[in-house]
Amino acid sequence: MPDKLTGKPVTKEIYAKIRSKIEDLKLTPKLVIIMIGEDPAAQYYVQNLEKRGLKIGIIIETKTYGTDITQTEILNQIDDLNQDDSVHGIMIQKPLPSHLDESEIVMKLSPEKDMDGFHPINMGNLILGKEGFLPSTPTAVLELLDFYNIETSGKNIVIIGRSNIVGKPLANLLLRKNKTGNATVTVCHSKTENLSEITRKADILIAAIGKAFFVTADMIKSDSIVIDVGVNQIDDPEKGHRYVGDVDYENCFHKVSAITPVPGGIGTITTAVLLRNVLSAAQKAN
Amino acid sequence: MPDKLTGKPVTKEIYAKIRSKIEDLKLTPKLVIIMIGEDPAAQYYVQNLEKRGLKIGIIIETKTYGTDITQTEILNQIDDLNQDDSVHGIMIQKPLPSHLDESEIVMKLSPEKDMDGFHPINMGNLILGKEGFLPSTPTAVLELLDFYNIETSGKNIVIIGRSNIVGKPLANLLLRKNKTGNATVTVCHSKTENLSEITRKADILIAAIGKAFFVTADMIKSDSIVIDVGVNQIDDPEKGHRYVGDVDYENCFHKVSAITPVPGGIGTITTAVLLRNVLSAAQKAN
Repeated sequence: MPDKLTGKPVTKEIYAKIRSKIEDLKLTPKLVIIMIGEDPAAQYYVQNLEKRGLKIGIIIETKTYGTDITQTEILNQIDDLNQDDSVHGIMIQKPLPSHLDESEIVMKLSPEKDMDGFHPINMGNLILGKEGFLPSTPTAVLELLDFYNIETSGKNIVIIGRSNIVGKPLANLLLRKNKTGNATVTVCHSKTENLSEITRKADILIAAIGKAFFVTADMIKSDSIVIDVGVNQIDDPEKGHRYVGDVDYENCFHKVSAITPVPGGIGTITTAVLLRNVLSAAQKAN
Repeated sequence: MPDKLTGKPVTKEIYAKIRSKIEDLKLTPKLVIIMIGEDPAAQYYVQNLEKRGLKIGIIIETKTYGTDITQTEILNQIDDLNQDDSVHGIMIQKPLPSHLDESEIVMKLSPEKDMDGFHPINMGNLILGKEGFLPSTPTAVLELLDFYNIETSGKNIVIIGRSNIVGKPLANLLLRKNKTGNATVTVCHSKTENLSEITRKADILIAAIGKAFFVTADMIKSDSIVIDVGVNQIDDPEKGHRYVGDVDYENCFHKVSAITPVPGGIGTITTAVLLRNVLSAAQKAN
């Protein structure tokens, strides 16, 4: 029977460590979320984050703005938060209205408060193997690999997807010289020729494409490990809609040695590693 | 007969463009090289750079320091150069004495004057696909691919070597969505299992290991393209020593469709792209 690599025990361990550290060090880490507009999925995510923060002792303040906010106003707001010593981390909740320049907004963040790890300095430190804040989703994959003691050294890891927030940073992290690194890493994407031929060589296949059921059973090697980073909303006759991953889980399950579910897999861990970033920021500030 | 992908015509074209731009824009780009100690290879490299600068209209000033310079002194020196509007680019010549903290020195550089592209901000912009200064050696590889119209889109490109200055940045660049990008990229290294099996699948094999004759004919696919980034000094009974690449050129030559020589390949182009960075910095400053 293949292993179902659920995120819950991974998350539980991370939260326990955060809680005990906050108690030991008597810290009150504080995260400010900047949310623009009223995207229901974003609101749902942020509400969950706030609840979780309450439970483990991290203050989370959400600043909500109308979609008519100007670029200058948002930059000034970030400036104030950068200066505010009581604020340890800042997160810019997506989506942003199209009139705003996301790149400039991220550049404005103090790298020491950039909880998403999207500031070029943090991204650069990631590739250079230096200390910095790491983006949540790639880090969540590493946490899962680490928790379940999945050997990566020398293994063929194939990532499908070359996004700035998952595929590329994850590839660089898996090349690091540490417990969850030392892998032989291949990055595939929409231009890849003979995709199945490449994915069938993967000891560990990581799907980060954003297309429901993209990875089918014929694309994976028997007894390999499959990690599904995708979260895709599809229609559901009963519930209206539901979330599925990039992997055709039902059909792949019996072929693999282990696989992450969606929901309940990687997505579960991302919130925990984000909040751990807030703790780290508070530790560094103190 | 396989193609010998020499660097000279690539370089010639880059220098011609630099020269004409300097004339058109009436600029006097200036590079300051910081050299510590008297490493003969470094001195030789810098002298060549100075000569080349003279020819194309870029002022190159080399500041040489004794190996007893302190970290504070070097940081102060960089501070002065960062402030100096007549200086457009700064390059820290390797090797540095071991008592100096290279990482802190690079961090001190203004990213706008970091000609090597090693500042985390420039590295981060590289991975994020944003504008910034790119490191010379990976850029030289892209220039060669571009000059010889080598198709990368959808091709299997295997890089051997995961260094911060070649393997990792090059992998990220080859994933970009442009003429020299869109490749399916695999990064191999010392921990890779079944290396030959992987390299034999490469449409384009890039060797960046730093080991003489590491890549042998049995490791490459027939009619593939081989790019040799290595520069290794070996003993020579007549000349005392000579430089060879990471690829066993003699034995691989007849199997490939095209290959870069060492010397005379990628290494030739790195100086040109470094000097082009100085021109770009001067353009941005003006």
